[in-house]
Amino acid sequence: MSSTFRDRHIGTDSAAQAEMLRVLGRDSVEGLVDTAVPDAIHVAERDSIIPPAATEAEALAELRELASQNRSARAMIGLGYYDTLTPSVIQRNVLENPSWYTAYTPYQPEISQGRLEALINFQTMVTDLTGLATANASMLDESTAVVEGMLVARRASKSASNVFLVDADAMPQTKALLHHRAAAVGVEILETDFSEVPEAFGAFVQYPGATGRVWDPSDVIAAVQAQKGLVVVAADLLALTLLRSPGSMGADVAVGTTQRFGVPMGFGGPHAGYMAVRAGLERQLPGRLVGVSMDAAGQPAYRLSLQTREQHIRREKATSNICTAQVLLAVMAAMYAVYHGPDGLKRIAEETTAKASLLRDWLVGSGAEVLHEAYFDTLVVRTPGRAEDVIADARRRGYQLWFRDSDSVGISVDETTTVADLQAVASVFGVDSSKVFVPLRDRNAHLPAALRRVDEYLTHPVFNTHRSETAMMRYLKQLADRDYALDRGMIPLGSCTMKLNAATEMAAVSWPEFARVHPFAPADDVAGYLVMIEQLEAWLAEVTGYDAVSLQPNAGSQGELAGLLAIRGYHHSRGDLHRDVCLIPSSAHGTNAASAVLAGMRVVVVACDEAGNVDLADLRAKVETHADSLAALMITYPSTHGVYEHDVMDITGAVHAAGGQVYVDGANLNALLGFARFGDLGGDVSHLNLHKTFAIPHGGGGPGVGPVAAKAHLAPFLPSHPMAQRAEHAGGHVFDGGPVSAAPYGSASILPISWAYVRMMGADGLRQATAAAVLAANYVARRLEGHYPVLYAGEGGLVAHECILDLRPLKESTGITVDDVAKRLIDYGFHAPTMSFPVAGTLMVEPTESEDLAELDRFVEAMIAIKAEADAVAAGEWPANDNPLVNAPHSAASVITSEWAHPYPREIAVYPVPGIVRTKYWPPVRRIDNAYGDRNLVCACPPIEAFA
Amino acid sequence: MSSTFRDRHIGTDSAAQAEMLRVLGRDSVEGLVDTAVPDAIHVAERDSIIPPAATEAEALAELRELASQNRSARAMIGLGYYDTLTPSVIQRNVLENPSWYTAYTPYQPEISQGRLEALINFQTMVTDLTGLATANASMLDESTAVVEGMLVARRASKSASNVFLVDADAMPQTKALLHHRAAAVGVEILETDFSEVPEAFGAFVQYPGATGRVWDPSDVIAAVQAQKGLVVVAADLLALTLLRSPGSMGADVAVGTTQRFGVPMGFGGPHAGYMAVRAGLERQLPGRLVGVSMDAAGQPAYRLSLQTREQHIRREKATSNICTAQVLLAVMAAMYAVYHGPDGLKRIAEETTAKASLLRDWLVGSGAEVLHEAYFDTLVVRTPGRAEDVIADARRRGYQLWFRDSDSVGISVDETTTVADLQAVASVFGVDSSKVFVPLRDRNAHLPAALRRVDEYLTHPVFNTHRSETAMMRYLKQLADRDYALDRGMIPLGSCTMKLNAATEMAAVSWPEFARVHPFAPADDVAGYLVMIEQLEAWLAEVTGYDAVSLQPNAGSQGELAGLLAIRGYHHSRGDLHRDVCLIPSSAHGTNAASAVLAGMRVVVVACDEAGNVDLADLRAKVETHADSLAALMITYPSTHGVYEHDVMDITGAVHAAGGQVYVDGANLNALLGFARFGDLGGDVSHLNLHKTFAIPHGGGGPGVGPVAAKAHLAPFLPSHPMAQRAEHAGGHVFDGGPVSAAPYGSASILPISWAYVRMMGADGLRQATAAAVLAANYVARRLEGHYPVLYAGEGGLVAHECILDLRPLKESTGITVDDVAKRLIDYGFHAPTMSFPVAGTLMVEPTESEDLAELDRFVEAMIAIKAEADAVAAGEWPANDNPLVNAPHSAASVITSEWAHPYPREIAVYPVPGIVRTKYWPPVRRIDNAYGDRNLVCACPPIEAFA
Repeated sequence: MSSTFRDRHIGTDSAAQAEMLRVLGRDSVEGLVDTAVPDAIHVAERDSIIPPAATEAEALAELRELASQNRSARAMIGLGYYDTLTPSVIQRNVLENPSWYTAYTPYQPEISQGRLEALINFQTMVTDLTGLATANASMLDESTAVVEGMLVARRASKSASNVFLVDADAMPQTKALLHHRAAAVGVEILETDFSEVPEAFGAFVQYPGATGRVWDPSDVIAAVQAQKGLVVVAADLLALTLLRSPGSMGADVAVGTTQRFGVPMGFGGPHAGYMAVRAGLERQLPGRLVGVSMDAAGQPAYRLSLQTREQHIRREKATSNICTAQVLLAVMAAMYAVYHGPDGLKRIAEETTAKASLLRDWLVGSGAEVLHEAYFDTLVVRTPGRAEDVIADARRRGYQLWFRDSDSVGISVDETTTVADLQAVASVFGVDSSKVFVPLRDRNAHLPAALRRVDEYLTHPVFNTHRSETAMMRYLKQLADRDYALDRGMIPLGSCTMKLNAATEMAAVSWPEFARVHPFAPADDVAGYLVMIEQLEAWLAEVTGYDAVSLQPNAGSQGELAGLLAIRGYHHSRGDLHRDVCLIPSSAHGTNAASAVLAGMRVVVVACDEAGNVDLADLRAKVETHADSLAALMITYPSTHGVYEHDVMDITGAVHAAGGQVYVDGANLNALLGFARFGDLGGDVSHLNLHKTFAIPHGGGGPGVGPVAAKAHLAPFLPSHPMAQRAEHAGGHVFDGGPVSAAPYGSASILPISWAYVRMMGADGLRQATAAAVLAANYVARRLEGHYPVLYAGEGGLVAHECILDLRPLKESTGITVDDVAKRLIDYGFHAPTMSFPVAGTLMVEPTESEDLAELDRFVEAMIAIKAEADAVAAGEWPANDNPLVNAPHSAASVITSEWAHPYPREIAVYPVPGIVRTKYWPPVRRIDNAYGDRNLVCACPPIEAFA
Repeated sequence: MSSTFRDRHIGTDSAAQAEMLRVLGRDSVEGLVDTAVPDAIHVAERDSIIPPAATEAEALAELRELASQNRSARAMIGLGYYDTLTPSVIQRNVLENPSWYTAYTPYQPEISQGRLEALINFQTMVTDLTGLATANASMLDESTAVVEGMLVARRASKSASNVFLVDADAMPQTKALLHHRAAAVGVEILETDFSEVPEAFGAFVQYPGATGRVWDPSDVIAAVQAQKGLVVVAADLLALTLLRSPGSMGADVAVGTTQRFGVPMGFGGPHAGYMAVRAGLERQLPGRLVGVSMDAAGQPAYRLSLQTREQHIRREKATSNICTAQVLLAVMAAMYAVYHGPDGLKRIAEETTAKASLLRDWLVGSGAEVLHEAYFDTLVVRTPGRAEDVIADARRRGYQLWFRDSDSVGISVDETTTVADLQAVASVFGVDSSKVFVPLRDRNAHLPAALRRVDEYLTHPVFNTHRSETAMMRYLKQLADRDYALDRGMIPLGSCTMKLNAATEMAAVSWPEFARVHPFAPADDVAGYLVMIEQLEAWLAEVTGYDAVSLQPNAGSQGELAGLLAIRGYHHSRGDLHRDVCLIPSSAHGTNAASAVLAGMRVVVVACDEAGNVDLADLRAKVETHADSLAALMITYPSTHGVYEHDVMDITGAVHAAGGQVYVDGANLNALLGFARFGDLGGDVSHLNLHKTFAIPHGGGGPGVGPVAAKAHLAPFLPSHPMAQRAEHAGGHVFDGGPVSAAPYGSASILPISWAYVRMMGADGLRQATAAAVLAANYVARRLEGHYPVLYAGEGGLVAHECILDLRPLKESTGITVDDVAKRLIDYGFHAPTMSFPVAGTLMVEPTESEDLAELDRFVEAMIAIKAEADAVAAGEWPANDNPLVNAPHSAASVITSEWAHPYPREIAVYPVPGIVRTKYWPPVRRIDNAYGDRNLVCACPPIEAFA
C-alpha cells in the first residue's frame, strides 16, 4: 500500500515527465521509447515470472525470511575465508554510508581524494606486509589474482617454457581456476610439491599452504628464478604479521585476499584481493593503481596512475581485462589496518595462532594425528575413513569444518574463535577438553624461528594514529567529506548507470545471516541464499530473453570472459577447435578486446560508420574472410554511442549464418529492460552489470557483479565451481564450464541488493525505469543541443539512455577542452560525465531514471553557463591561459588568498550560479597533474611532511 | 580477546596519559584522582555485580540473544502507539548517522543550521496540521505534553477555578499522569464525558478518543472558554490529515505525539511529543522553540527563540522544567512528512481508516457490537465477560489487542496493517473473512462530513520537493553538512559530557525486535526487554550506591521531578504534609528549582562561597530556619563549578539531622563513577543522565534518559505505571509513586545503548573512564591557566571532570567577550564549551575521556591562539569593532568576496592555524542576531524567497 518503491526510485514524477515530454514535443513516455527502440526488436507482451512489485516493507520481510533459512553456524573451513570482526565504526561509517558506497570510480581524482587516500593506505598495507615494492588498489579475489599473477609471470619471464608450476598445497578453488584459465591461453599447468623444480616461466606458492603448512619457499623461489621463471606467492596477510614476507624470500609477485581484515565472508564475496610486485614489474601490474602526484598549487594529490596500461586504453594489448576493482572492500580492509595498527594486527595474529596451537595440543594429546609441525591457523587431522562422519558430527554441534578428503578434516581458527569453540570442536575428535584445559596464552613455538618476521611494517603515522573510535570516526568523516558521491548530486556517467542505491536494497548486506557465511558451507546451511540466487537467476534470464544465468562472475569483465569461454567451450564441444576469431566493432569498450584475448581468441576489428553504428558491409566482409574460424561477434546494444542500432538483427543474423556466436555486451541494458531482450536480438550470451542496471552501488570503484546469461545451447559451458553447493541452476540447467571466480556464487553477499531492486520494481517498474531513463537522456540532449552538438541519434532523432555532447567545436572555437569543462563542472557542484569515450573530445551523459527534473535542469543550466564562459574566453574577455575554465576546479584555499591575480573575480570562480552557496561542494585539491604522477611513480602513503 | 572496547572508548592511551601526567607533575592517573576526590568519600573496594567487560562482539551477541526473547507480534493495541514504516532513507541517514545523532543541543546556532531547519520543518508540520499559530520543537511524549498543556492553561487562564476537566475518553496513561502531577501542584482533576461543562481553568479533550471515537468538541471548547478556561486538545496528527484541526475548532493548545510519523514504537520511546498554541500564548510555550532570525550578513538563519523563558534562565519562575527535547525523533518525524508530503500523508491516513472500516464491517456483519459510528483507526468491540479470552486468542495468532476492560477489546490499525492482518484479527471474533471478503478500497463514509478537513496543509515547498529517495538522501546530507557534531571534532561542553557514542552501542536500536514493540505489550512478549531493564537497573544502583532505580523518566528533568515527587511521597506517607521547603544552592542548574516547584515545593536558595562551594554556615542557618518544613536539599556533586566539594558529608548530615532528604543531581556523575557513590555521600535520591555519563547520544538536543535512583526507604515512591508489565524492579523493590512518563519504561528503545556501554566497559572500565576524564580536564586546565585564569579548584589544586576558564579579565583588557571567543572557536574548527554557566563571563570545558591527546592539544592551542588575537586587539593592531573575533564566525561566502574591507586578511579569518585547510568546517551562516529573532518571532518555514 502507500507509496510504491518505484515512485521513490524514479526521480521524475508524472508532472515532471509531462513537462519533459512537452520540451521534446512528444505525447507519452511509452510512445517516446516505442519510437526510439526499433520496431523489429520490441518485446512481445507476456506474463512475467517476476512477482508484482513488493513494498519496501514487504521486500525486507521476505529478505528476513530468506535470511532465517541460512543456518547460523561457526565456519572453520578455512581455504582463504575466515570469520572476522568488522569494527562497528567501519561497518556503520563506510559499509553503510552512502558517501562511501555510492561513489564512482575515481576517474575524477580532484573529487575522489578521500577514497584515493584510503586506497593508498591499502596499497601501503599490502606492500609493507608483503615486503614488495608496489601494490595495486585491489584485485577481484585471491584465485583470480593468482591467474593474473601467472599472466604477469608469462609477460615478464624470459623463459621459453610454457609451463606454470602450481603448488600442490594450493587452495583447491585456485587450482580449478588456474586449470580453466590456463587452458584458454595455452599455458600448461603442472602441479607439484616442489620436491623438484622443472623449467617453467613461473611458479605459484601458497603460503601458508591450504593444509596449513608453514614452510620456507626461498629455495624453490631461487630455483625457479634461476631458470628465468617468476614466482607468485599467495600469502595470508594476517600470517605475514608474524612470518617472513614473500618479498624477503625473493618472490616476484605476491597475491592474496584481504577478506579477514574485517570484511565479512558473505558467502564468497565481495572482498578485496591484492597483488604486489617487486621493483621493475610496476608496469606489468593489472588493475588499478593509485599514485601520488601534485595539483596546480604544487600540493600532493592522489590519482590513478599508469592508466594507459589499462584495458580501456590498450584494448587487446592490455595486461588484463580487469576493469572493476573492489574499492569499498579495500577501503574496509585498509581501515581495519588503520584502526588496529601494526600492534593490533600482530596481537590478533598471535591470538589466532595460539588458539590453533592450543587445539593442536589437545588433539595430539588425545592421540589424533595432525599434519605439519609448523602452521599458522589451520590444522588438518587424519581421520581415516571417518571424515564425513566427523564433519557431520561437527555440523550438528554448530561447526563447519573442511572435508579435505575421506581421510582428513581441516580446521581453521580465526579472530572470532573462542576457547569454547575450540573445546566444542575438540570434542568432535573425542577430546575431553575439560580435562586437558589450559588457559590460552601466548604460544607460538610452532612458528619456525627462521621464518619469523623481524622487520617492521605499517610504520606510517596513518596506521598509528586513529586508535580510539572517536578518532577513527572522524578520520572516516574527513575522507568522506573530500569526495563527491551520489549523496551530493548527479553523476551522469555514460555507460555507468549511476542510479539510486536504495537504503532498503542495502539493508540485508549488513545482516549476519548473509554476512557471516562461508562460501563452501554445506548446502543445507545456506538454503536462504540458494533460494534467493535461483530466483534472481530466473528473473534475470527472463528480462534478458536467455535461458540460463550464472551469478558467479564478480565483475563485468569476468562475466564477459565467462561468456567468451562458454562460446569457446561450445565450439570445442562440437569439434570446432579452429574457431577463434572474435569480431569486435571499433566503437566497443576496450574490455571486450582484452577479454577476448584472455579467452584465447584473436581480435578482428569491424569498422563503424559515421553514425557510430556497425558498418554492415565491413561486418559482412570480415565474416566472409573469417568464416571458417569465426568464433564470435561482440556487440554492445544499445551501442556505446547511445543509439539503438536499427540493423541489429541483420548483424546477428550474418554472424549466425557463418557459424559464429553472438555476444551482446550488457553495459547498456538500462536502455532496454522491459522493451527489448538481448536473447530476442540474436544474442547467444551476454554479461550483465548488476552494479549498473540492477542498483548495486559502485562503491567508489567496486564491487561489481557481472552475471553471464546465455541461451540453452551455451548453458553447459557456463561457470561451474568444484565447491558449488548445487550444480543445477534456475531452469534446471547444469553448468560445467569451469570457474571464473574464487567462490561458487561470486559476490553473493551483495546479491540481495539486486534481488530487492527487482522485487520492489516488478516487471512493470523495470520497464518504467527504462522509459524514465530514456526520457531523461533525450530531455538533456534536447535542452543542450543548441549549445553543444549532440552526436548520434537513432529512430526519430532520439537517443537511448545516454547522449554524447560533442565538445570538439567548442575546443576549436574557444580552446576550451573536454577536461576544462569536466573540471569546471566540479565548481558548479557536479561530477563530470564520461570523458572522451567512445569518441575523443566528447562528453557522454547518462542521467539515469533516478534523477529528478530539478537536478536535470541544474545540470543543463550548468552546461549552458559553462558554454557561455567558454564563449567569453573566445571573445577575449578572459585570456586563454587564465580563466575560470582552465583554472578549474577551484578549491576553497585557492580563492581565499589575499592576493588574487586572475582576471575573473573569486565569486565567479566558486559561486558561478545563484543558489550554489547553500550546497557548495569544495574540491579538496586543484587540478591534478597526471603526467607528473606517471613520471614520478609513488604508490604508497607519502610522508606527512609532504603536505606541509 | 583482541583489543578491548575500553581502549577504543577512552581516547588517551597509556603513552598519552604519561605525557599528560608529566605536564601535571603527577605520578599516576589513579593517584591524581585519589587526590582530587576527598578521602572521606572514596568508595570502598568491592566485588561488582557488573560482569567483566565484554568485547564488542560479545555484547552484540548478548544483545541479539536478548532481542530474540522479545516475541515478534503485531501490535494493534493503539493508545497513542502505532506501528509505522520508518523510511529506510531516514533510518540510514538520520537514525544511524553520527552526523545527526552525535550533535549537541543547538545552543551554537551558527553550526546547527541543519537540525534547526529540520526542527523548523517539524514546527511547521505541527502548526499546519493542528491549525494553531506556533509549535515548539518537540515535547517528551504526549502524556507529559498534556500535563504541560494543563500548566499552560493554568498560567494563562483568568479563571479562579482550581479545576482541570479531563476527557473520560482520554488515554489511560495520560489520566494517570495527570492525576499524579496535578496532585503535586494543587490542581483538582475532574474526569468528565463533557455532557456538562463545570467551571474550570481548563479542559483536556482527546481527539479522536482512546476508544476511537471521532466527535466534534467545538461546543465543549466554547463552553470552557466562556468560563475563562483554556482547552487543550490531544490530537492524532495522522487523523488530522482527514479531520478538522483543533485550531479550527477553537482549541487554545494542541498536544500529541508524532511517533507514528516513522518513529518506531520502541517499547514506549523515545518519540517526539508536540505542543502548539494559538496566537498570544507563544511565550507560555514550554520547551524549545526554533525561530528565524538573521545573521551578520542579513541572511535568514535559524536559532532557538525566547530562551529567556527557559528553566536555565528563569529557574523557579520558569514555565516548565523541561530541558531536553526529542530532537532526533522530531527530525525523523519531520522528514517523514517531508518525504511523504501532504498527499502521501493523506493517502496513508485514508488507507488506515479504510482498513478500520473494512474490519468494522466484517465485525458488525458477523453480529459483533462495535462502539462508535465515527472513528479513525480504532475500534472497540464489546465482548461481555470474554475480553481476556479474546485477547489471549489473538495473542496466540500473533496479534496484541487492547484489554480495555473485561467486557471490551480495542483494535487499532495503522500504516503497516495488511488485509491478511485484518482477516486474522477478524477471525478471533468468529468472522470468517474469507466469506465476507471485499477488496480494500477508498472508504471513509464513517468520517462525519462536518468534521472533514477542508483546508490545505504542508504547502511549503519543503514538503513538496523531496519525493524521490535520491532527493531525500541529498537533502539530509545537505542539512548534515551544515552542522558540527562529534564526528567533526570535540564538543567540550561542561556539564554535558559529550563522550563517544559507539557504533556497537547504537546497533541494537535499529533492530526490529527492540524497535517494533508496543509499550503495553504483554510481559511474556517483552521478556528480553525486561531482563535488560532489570540488569541495567541493578548495575546503575550499584555504581551509584543506591538500592533501587527506575528507568521511566525520559529526560534528566523528569528524573529530577520523579526524585522530588518520591521525597514528597515519603514525607506524606509519614504524615509530614508540611515539609515542602527545598533548599537549592545558588550555583545550581536552573532546572533544579523549576522541578522543585513542579513537585509542589517552595524553593529556598542557599548561598555559595567564593570558591563555588555551598556556604556551610548559610546552609545550617537555612536548615534551622526551615527545620520543621524542610523537605529536601538539592545538591550537585561534583559541584556545577567542577569541584569535588570537601564538606559534602557535613552538608548532607545537616539536612538529614533536620529530617530532610538529600537529592544529589547526577549531571556530573562522569567525574565520580568508580571512585565515589552518591549513596555513600548521604544522597537519598538522584537522577542520572544516561545521555551524558552512559553514552546515549545527545541526538542534537534529545532524546535523553534520566533514571531516578534512590535508597530503599524512597523506593516505594519511585515511578509506577498503570500498564507496567511488572511492578517489581531490580532488588525486589515495588514502585508505587505514580507515573512521570507516558510509557512504563520511558525511552526503552535506547536503553540498549547504556546497557552495552556498561557491559563493554565493566566496572573497571567505568572507573578508568572517570579517571581519564578527570585527567583530561586537569590537563586542559593546566595548559591554559597561563592564558586564562581557571576558576575553582579542590584538593591539590585539582578540578574534577571540567574546568571553568574565566574570560572576564580578557574582556576587561581587550573588550573581547565570551561570545566572541565561542564564535571564533568555530573558525578554528571547534564547538564552543558551555558559555557563562555557572558563572557569567566564563567558559566551562569538559573534554570527557573520549578525546585523544591530539585533539586536546588542538583545542588548547586554539584557545591560546585566540588569546593572542584578543591581545592584538588590545594592542591596537586591530580595531575593537573590526577584528577576527568580533566578526567570527566567518562563513566561506563571507571571505570569498572581491571586496575585503577588514584590517585582517582573509586567510587569518578562516585558516588561522596551519593544518586546518584539510579538515576545515565551514559554518553555513555568520553570527546570528539573537535579539532580532526574539523581537520578530517567526517559528515556521520561511518562504524560499527569503534566502534569495
